[in-house]
Amino acid sequence: MCEANAYLVTENGEELVLERVDRLIPRDGELFLESIFGQQKILKNTKIKSLALIDHKIYLERISETD
Amino acid sequence: MCEANAYLVTENGEELVLERVDRLIPRDGELFLESIFGQQKILKNTKIKSLALIDHKIYLERISETD
Repeated sequence: MCEANAYLVTENGEELVLERVDRLIPRDGELFLESIFGQQKILKNTKIKSLALIDHKIYLERISETD
Repeated sequence: MCEANAYLVTENGEELVLERVDRLIPRDGELFLESIFGQQKILKNTKIKSLALIDHKIYLERISETD
């Protein structure tokens, strides 16, 4: 399967926020995520930092005030 | 393999911009993409519209003036 795990990257490291993400939709400073199991999460004030699909990783980060 | 194809979505439909993307990094209103073959592209004035990883699809869109 080709889903990816979503991690929030902070100064303290990486925090797993949702496993096996299929769909991700950015909208108005928040992110909607849905896993292959149908689990949904909305992360406010968050954006995509990078994707590394071969590693099955989605890196997210908080939106800073300077963005 | 778990890479995805990147499509630019416009009012005229979907345009394939890069096949088999491994890495994607948003930075300052542009997107850096790299395929599993090492092919790199930088798309200015572009953002992620959505991901559909089970379908191996990354949808991109131009940043509008109202964003």
